Amino acid sequence: MAEKYKLTYFNAKGFAEPIRLIFANAGVQYEDNRIEREDWPTLKNTFPWGQLPVLQFGDKTLSQSNTICRFLGRKFNLTGSNDWEAARVDELADALSDFRKEVEKIFGESAEKDEVKKAELTANFLSNISPLFFGNLESSIAKNGDSPYLVGKNLTWIDLQVAHSLDLFDTIMPNMVGAFPKLRKLKDTVYKIPQIAEWIEKRPKTNF
Amino acid sequence: MAEKYKLTYFNAKGFAEPIRLIFANAGVQYEDNRIEREDWPTLKNTFPWGQLPVLQFGDKTLSQSNTICRFLGRKFNLTGSNDWEAARVDELADALSDFRKEVEKIFGESAEKDEVKKAELTANFLSNISPLFFGNLESSIAKNGDSPYLVGKNLTWIDLQVAHSLDLFDTIMPNMVGAFPKLRKLKDTVYKIPQIAEWIEKRPKTNF
Repeated sequence: MAEKYKLTYFNAKGFAEPIRLIFANAGVQYEDNRIEREDWPTLKNTFPWGQLPVLQFGDKTLSQSNTICRFLGRKFNLTGSNDWEAARVDELADALSDFRKEVEKIFGESAEKDEVKKAELTANFLSNISPLFFGNLESSIAKNGDSPYLVGKNLTWIDLQVAHSLDLFDTIMPNMVGAFPKLRKLKDTVYKIPQIAEWIEKRPKTNF
Repeated sequence: MAEKYKLTYFNAKGFAEPIRLIFANAGVQYEDNRIEREDWPTLKNTFPWGQLPVLQFGDKTLSQSNTICRFLGRKFNLTGSNDWEAARVDELADALSDFRKEVEKIFGESAEKDEVKKAELTANFLSNISPLFFGNLESSIAKNGDSPYLVGKNLTWIDLQVAHSLDLFDTIMPNMVGAFPKLRKLKDTVYKIPQIAEWIEKRPKTNF
């Protein structure tokens, strides 16, 4: 019997959306369990690490978004064609996590409050951190010849993570991604996959 | 011909030491390239992400400490006995990375400067974050019956990461780990592996 997966997160895209894209791409049914913010304080301690997203199936519980993506990616053939490609996917996922933390310092709820410090962080982000990050993604795609993907010839879970993140980055930093045509094409390619397009059309409408 | 690995990091244990422990445990020779802090500004831009550690072999370059550990762990049979165990290892590694970021907010060079905020962070760390983290590691070991390891019956790369981190945590927060006997035993077990013990005896003496 096929595993019955349950994914728990807030009613938001956030760190769960790449996991939902993996399920959509694989055409696998799962329970898309969305917790309202006001219920979180009560429910927080019922999860092993007090964090979401959490994937449950059978008697198993798995936390950490990258870990869940990697686990499902392996099940549904999204980890590249060999261990080296799997490692390149992992490296980009860790780099994306690092980059999102930098973004949060400037744009998120927990952004720096001191205006002078924030201006310094923003200047460094725009001059150094952001061009390095997007430039490395762009050149990662360029290495693959005709392939539009980040690692190797086929879609991997980092493509789904990056496509989703570009959506977010386009919202909070319009034009940032414009200088990177291969990244723009990656996002278009991913969002045109029929089962991904179908999910994006029907998914609950949330701001983030 | 066997791969010739080169690991580049600072002259410190830090994020490279679990990788060195993986090489030691596997009995695999590698170049342990240590950069002096004063040379880093010049060398920083020669690495793809401007970060260390970096693993190089053949024409390949890999960044991100967890990614490198996972890649070498897979080569040297340290990722558990199946995909579920590999995922549990990944989950604990991500949780350890999160925990180290919390530690850095209080103890590191980039610790919070505002004394009031720091006192709040420290109180939350001691009452909530730290007991949850160490408690989850302890119960992860407890699930494995007679096995002293974090995931399943055999040594995995998260055991090496945690044993090394406990060394650090014992230094900066003495007695913190004392309440968790299975964690204490894990560290002893790992550090008694002959090739690990040999490396620890001969490794360059550095504070961190």
